[in-house]
Amino acid sequence: MTKVNVYVTLRESVVDPQGIATTDALKNMGFAEVTSVRIGKLIELEIDETTTDIDARVKEMCDKLLINKVIEDYRYEIEEA
Amino acid sequence: MTKVNVYVTLRESVVDPQGIATTDALKNMGFAEVTSVRIGKLIELEIDETTTDIDARVKEMCDKLLINKVIEDYRYEIEEA
Repeated sequence: MTKVNVYVTLRESVVDPQGIATTDALKNMGFAEVTSVRIGKLIELEIDETTTDIDARVKEMCDKLLINKVIEDYRYEIEEA
Repeated sequence: MTKVNVYVTLRESVVDPQGIATTDALKNMGFAEVTSVRIGKLIELEIDETTTDIDARVKEMCDKLLINKVIEDYRYEIEEA
């Protein structure tokens, strides 16, 4: 089994209300050192290890379903397990 | 500014309906090689670099607000920026 972690973040130009609310909550709780919080997604894929060209397949999955390219960026890491 | 990435995943024993739906969708789209998808969170914190003992502070934030320890696990990475 090959494990792939896809890290999805909101584009910098996109407002992140959940992140802003979290920043405010942390500050109110006494964590004054926190200047910014942004909340993205971590998508953990398990892929059959006989798959050829995993890079191309993962990119295709991201383009077709996993990522909204209008508002999101992504990067991924492939790890053997 | 110190950047900290917190990776939040559902505990293995917890059912992930969003991940199951994503697995099914990918299979239906022809990505038969995908055996499992689990969806977690990526929390990007920016913290004042004068903060002492960032490890302890990040753990405290996770324990008090960011993580639901009943159903979630987490790990984090600190990177200087």
